[in-house]
Amino acid sequence: MNPGESLQRLRERKPLVHQITNYVVMNETANATLALGALPVMAHAREEVEEMTGLAGALVINIGTLSPHWVDAMLAAGVAANERGVPVVLDPVGAGATTYRTDTAHSILAAVAVDVLRGNAGEVATLAGIAAEVRGVESIDTAAEPADLAREAARRLSVVTAVTGAVDYVSDGDRTVAVGNGHPLMGTVTGTGCMASAITGCFLAVADSPLDAAVEALVTFGIAGEDAAASARGPGSFHVNLYDALAALEPETLSARAKLA
Amino acid sequence: MNPGESLQRLRERKPLVHQITNYVVMNETANATLALGALPVMAHAREEVEEMTGLAGALVINIGTLSPHWVDAMLAAGVAANERGVPVVLDPVGAGATTYRTDTAHSILAAVAVDVLRGNAGEVATLAGIAAEVRGVESIDTAAEPADLAREAARRLSVVTAVTGAVDYVSDGDRTVAVGNGHPLMGTVTGTGCMASAITGCFLAVADSPLDAAVEALVTFGIAGEDAAASARGPGSFHVNLYDALAALEPETLSARAKLA
Amino acid sequence: MNPGESLQRLRERKPLVHQITNYVVMNETANATLALGALPVMAHAREEVEEMTGLAGALVINIGTLSPHWVDAMLAAGVAANERGVPVVLDPVGAGATTYRTDTAHSILAAVAVDVLRGNAGEVATLAGIAAEVRGVESIDTAAEPADLAREAARRLSVVTAVTGAVDYVSDGDRTVAVGNGHPLMGTVTGTGCMASAITGCFLAVADSPLDAAVEALVTFGIAGEDAAASARGPGSFHVNLYDALAALEPETLSARAKLA
Repeated sequence: MNPGESLQRLRERKPLVHQITNYVVMNETANATLALGALPVMAHAREEVEEMTGLAGALVINIGTLSPHWVDAMLAAGVAANERGVPVVLDPVGAGATTYRTDTAHSILAAVAVDVLRGNAGEVATLAGIAAEVRGVESIDTAAEPADLAREAARRLSVVTAVTGAVDYVSDGDRTVAVGNGHPLMGTVTGTGCMASAITGCFLAVADSPLDAAVEALVTFGIAGEDAAASARGPGSFHVNLYDALAALEPETLSARAKLA
Repeated sequence: MNPGESLQRLRERKPLVHQITNYVVMNETANATLALGALPVMAHAREEVEEMTGLAGALVINIGTLSPHWVDAMLAAGVAANERGVPVVLDPVGAGATTYRTDTAHSILAAVAVDVLRGNAGEVATLAGIAAEVRGVESIDTAAEPADLAREAARRLSVVTAVTGAVDYVSDGDRTVAVGNGHPLMGTVTGTGCMASAITGCFLAVADSPLDAAVEALVTFGIAGEDAAASARGPGSFHVNLYDALAALEPETLSARAKLA
Repeated sequence: MNPGESLQRLRERKPLVHQITNYVVMNETANATLALGALPVMAHAREEVEEMTGLAGALVINIGTLSPHWVDAMLAAGVAANERGVPVVLDPVGAGATTYRTDTAHSILAAVAVDVLRGNAGEVATLAGIAAEVRGVESIDTAAEPADLAREAARRLSVVTAVTGAVDYVSDGDRTVAVGNGHPLMGTVTGTGCMASAITGCFLAVADSPLDAAVEALVTFGIAGEDAAASARGPGSFHVNLYDALAALEPETLSARAKLA
């Protein structure tokens, strides 16, 4: 696990990260991807997703604004990614809030070998079959502590799981890592969770394992959040600073700044 | 009418505000909702809109980028909102510019009991059957003064109507209130009208009446605009400042700063 | 060729610029259009595109996030624009990356008399039948120098062609103009290419010829980029500054600042 080395590799290779994501955050995740040093591409047409995924270093599937054509494209892209060895992140935005979202996330997990599942506690708990309350896209309450939740979800769903919150927990079912980087202002801007998933996609394209990718991504994004908060006056200026901070990250400083447990 | 008290209530209850809105401003209205203190959720699939609306404290319907599937979802969500007592705001973006937009706005007003209609003078005049010129999504000219227009539209359409502009006018057909808060820079950023509608949705979830909600929302948003303008160097920095200003609003100062007539 | 005069005319006439563009940049191109001084409108429904185009001073077609309904609307709007003498810009985002994008761009060029084609080197080379590598929406390599590419594409496709990059080249097949304005930070923000196309649309509504419009747009946007970079700390603050800079442009200074060759 070495976020600095992976970031350096990412900036050298500039992997293409294919994102099938929601309307609300497309610009934001594209800009976060670009600021970090990778190349984002958004493409959702059934006519082209497989070809685009085939060119990519990673695929990010985010169900934040769904409709049937998009679900078809997500499934097709996921299957194509599996066939070509392209790693996949799934962000199950709002799973637990509506049946459609919960069912779609389950369908994707059933049809596609996902490398990292990243969500908030309510979303992950819903998918793992643990009681949870999700209001819209916000996690309100779950029946398990987030560390246990990450481990249990990873076991039940057989996928590396990242549960993000005040502290993030990443687990492959055996090993569970806590990431303490980040800042409360991250919760005041729409799409920071989606950015975390996009950045996980970036690291999946260069990291040694899905667990490494998820942890390195959350450390890196959390550090950028800390830097962005330093001169922020509220959610608007924090949001702007976040892109500046991602672009200014110095790979050689990341390991020392990582708050891992 | 007490914008500060309503804002305080809103920040305590954090109502979910379901928004079926246009592609151009989704991120912006979500961030404005969040900065104010409520929880935004965007969902437009016919498969989930009724369930999502049922969870919400208010529904915002904005026709800024239409297509048939979206219109179906707006109608279904509006009917579901009515059945469950969830208040509804309609933002008829571009009504008057094309027949499709005018017809869609009329269809929604016919099928759904809307609590607040918020638009610019041209859009509202078009829907009330008063001569108007709308260029794209911009109001160019109308045959009535905005105060008269708000009152007349409220009477003809039987809905609390907010006509926003340099001064905003809100009317329930009997009482008409002028809101003088705001700043000319608000007209230089795409989506500030849509944000006004989203914030009206936030206040509908906690206010005593639709008239109160619309007035309190426009006072609150206008004051945030005034604060944002103070250190702005143009439309870009104003836009960023607006989120900072919404988050920094002090409820106890709003009544004294309200410019009502 | 006089960017300052055209900008002044644009701010006086405030032409409506109809944009059928991608989900990622809609807010950004709308705000750039507005900051420059024109009126943006986004509309993509087959039910209204012809009517909206008929109201517009220019039409911008951008294929950055495609699906079949959108392609239908682009073709219908393009044909309507031709019938009514409304000038058209085409931005073939990602042509060369997938067959669907390449084919769609060719279909539009076949069905619609496009006034300006604006793309990166890889996209333009693909459409002109010159070898190129496009990764997602990024140009990686082409078999021709950009100046030659612009001229050759203009000849083969019979359309004024703008190839943007570190230096931009605009050609009508006979005359080729190099525009040296701009700043490397423009490449660090998603959608600056799309903004360049939107701004080309704005100038098409007021300029003397498509060649003039494309050159004046790139000079103007490049100068705004230079101004925005002056106090930027990275891609986030650069992006914000860009809108401030567009709004602050002084028409009378543009000719002196233009770097033309």
